[in-house]
Amino acid sequence: MINKSAAALPKSYLFSEVGRRVGEYQKENPSANIIRMGIGDVTLPLPKACVDAMKAAADEQLCAATFRGYGPDQGYAFLREAIADNDYKAFGADVSADEIFISDGAKSDCANIQEMFDNDCIVGVSDPVYPVYIDSNGWNGRLGKFADGKWETLVTFPCTPENGFIAAPPVGKRVDLIYLCFPNNPTGAAATRAQLAAWVDYAKTRGAVILFDAAYRAFIRGDEIPRSIYEIEGARDCAIEFGSFSKSAGFTGTRCSWTVVPHSLTVEGEPLHALWTRRQATKFNGVPYVIQRAAEAVYSKEGAEQAAANIEYYRKNAAAIMDALRGMGYPVWGAEHSPYAWVKCPQGLTSWEFFDILLKRANVVCTPGSGFGSCGEGYVRLSAFNTYENTLEAMGRIAALR
Amino acid sequence: MINKSAAALPKSYLFSEVGRRVGEYQKENPSANIIRMGIGDVTLPLPKACVDAMKAAADEQLCAATFRGYGPDQGYAFLREAIADNDYKAFGADVSADEIFISDGAKSDCANIQEMFDNDCIVGVSDPVYPVYIDSNGWNGRLGKFADGKWETLVTFPCTPENGFIAAPPVGKRVDLIYLCFPNNPTGAAATRAQLAAWVDYAKTRGAVILFDAAYRAFIRGDEIPRSIYEIEGARDCAIEFGSFSKSAGFTGTRCSWTVVPHSLTVEGEPLHALWTRRQATKFNGVPYVIQRAAEAVYSKEGAEQAAANIEYYRKNAAAIMDALRGMGYPVWGAEHSPYAWVKCPQGLTSWEFFDILLKRANVVCTPGSGFGSCGEGYVRLSAFNTYENTLEAMGRIAALR
Repeated sequence: MINKSAAALPKSYLFSEVGRRVGEYQKENPSANIIRMGIGDVTLPLPKACVDAMKAAADEQLCAATFRGYGPDQGYAFLREAIADNDYKAFGADVSADEIFISDGAKSDCANIQEMFDNDCIVGVSDPVYPVYIDSNGWNGRLGKFADGKWETLVTFPCTPENGFIAAPPVGKRVDLIYLCFPNNPTGAAATRAQLAAWVDYAKTRGAVILFDAAYRAFIRGDEIPRSIYEIEGARDCAIEFGSFSKSAGFTGTRCSWTVVPHSLTVEGEPLHALWTRRQATKFNGVPYVIQRAAEAVYSKEGAEQAAANIEYYRKNAAAIMDALRGMGYPVWGAEHSPYAWVKCPQGLTSWEFFDILLKRANVVCTPGSGFGSCGEGYVRLSAFNTYENTLEAMGRIAALR
Repeated sequence: MINKSAAALPKSYLFSEVGRRVGEYQKENPSANIIRMGIGDVTLPLPKACVDAMKAAADEQLCAATFRGYGPDQGYAFLREAIADNDYKAFGADVSADEIFISDGAKSDCANIQEMFDNDCIVGVSDPVYPVYIDSNGWNGRLGKFADGKWETLVTFPCTPENGFIAAPPVGKRVDLIYLCFPNNPTGAAATRAQLAAWVDYAKTRGAVILFDAAYRAFIRGDEIPRSIYEIEGARDCAIEFGSFSKSAGFTGTRCSWTVVPHSLTVEGEPLHALWTRRQATKFNGVPYVIQRAAEAVYSKEGAEQAAANIEYYRKNAAAIMDALRGMGYPVWGAEHSPYAWVKCPQGLTSWEFFDILLKRANVVCTPGSGFGSCGEGYVRLSAFNTYENTLEAMGRIAALR
């Protein structure tokens, strides 16, 4: 009667173990000034334009004439149109407002999207990887058994310095559902047009579906790196994309995101847009009206400037991390189009060994790369979501270690 | 590769068909003043205390020191404690704050809860019923095939005037997952302690799990009808409960609800609290902080008074509907502990036939009972979510039909 796959899902101890070790150290060293660069959560305030819009929308709820009850399942048109115009059409990507589904988080959508597919699908993910892609499939028993740290039927694409942490499509191997995340969490790698085009080509040839997580797109600089998979020709026929206001506008606690399901995307003749519409109508009831108004304000002149200023602040931190660590001789990746620096542990240390050194000798918290998959072993992730002063202080402490 | 059960899920045409017929009639009769008593959405403004709390919480997001990023997966303690104290302990129900999971909607939770169980579970629902319970199970293929308007393995509990629209547990029949909703949508029936105790007894004896939807509990009057299944002894060992601010405080567009999973509830030795914790941590990222603050304000002195005043307004409408229709000789149920009146169609008319008469001759929109299941045929649902003036006007028009 119980879902045995769900009950057997291996627990993820990554962040709880980080928290346990930090807590223990802080307890033993109450005066230690610990700088937390492990967490993937934003720290700067919400854009004022978003707060103003939220409050104005809240005031509308005081009067029956402007009160909003149940909204459209798929989200309000005002927000879907703003996303289509500003995040897609402005970049030459052909996405219409009615292909956009507003949701409470990219995590929810990334986790729920697999419900559209059967349990015989072969799932492929990068290694290292955001664990939600794996866990949501494992919950349903789609990955076979978990033994010796591996899922029976999961295909992993190793991401290493040799491939710049961006895997090419597998040769001669079947994968039906392909999770891609660029700019990547945790490595910060950003895929080029040619790299994405190779995946689109693979998916179209094989009848696979790409699930493209673009939650970190706001950190992309310049025009060379595509912000959306729909900038690649043919992607409308094989890809679903997830976007989010969490990192672009500080909405991690405010909760708003979207998923694009193109009308032209079909699997075995079934249009996925209709299926996702049905899924959302059955299992979801929309995002708060006041939150959708706050998200809309991200695209106002003031909101866009305020959100961009926050991103610029985090970018400056990321650049400071990369420059400082490279200056110390550490191999570092990411951090250019991403808030994450992916750092090679020195002297062959494991991720957790280097974690302990950084914690105990520099009072800096990182995230052990091994928590994201076996190819993450020997790396740590440092995050730019902190103050500039703390970032410089942390780098100074790490420099003093050598 | 596609989820064939999901793709084959029969479409629900109920509300779209209602909308189509109303739209067509309005187009042909542009001057008709149509009164909509079909919809289950609230109409009165949010309690001012909730709006004030939401705006204060929004202002906190303007400053890094008070800014909130990712919140606790399970919801903020301030809200979970307020719910435990006011909605459970105050009624003698033994529910602790850490058994409460804050979510974006009772619909989402009602739909997602089945993910904890395997596909061989036997599901039981009342007939008529809120379609989400069925559709969420059908999506996963748990109900077998759908043919001739029936699901292969779904067990239905007929609700008729003979049993007061409240079914007793089945005799000699296995059901593993039992969906109960009291006060009921659509019939408005409210179960007594003895009736709920019979279900708890059945579930405990059979090892079944009750999924208790208490979304309409705010409409219960007096002390005789239990507001929570946890007022029944033994329910903590066999029941999950869903609560919501949608109907109690007008949050249909503001989105906040909760689910109670008691620590003592196990299935095949698996504690469901741990499993649901894992599910939410994997597939959900919490409710906006500002919304949780707004929900907390429902329990403040002002918020509680304002919410109660709104409920009282709807109750007055419900009483007016019941009194008027009974005065005209219609058999009517519900409406006492519920915002819905469940009305027998006159002269053997089908639900849709009576719908058309009410629409075309009285310009009143109802919901055809047959849309909620075969036992709903021959009934319509009228909702109290309207102005008192419109409610009286609608009753006058229906009286004039006779």
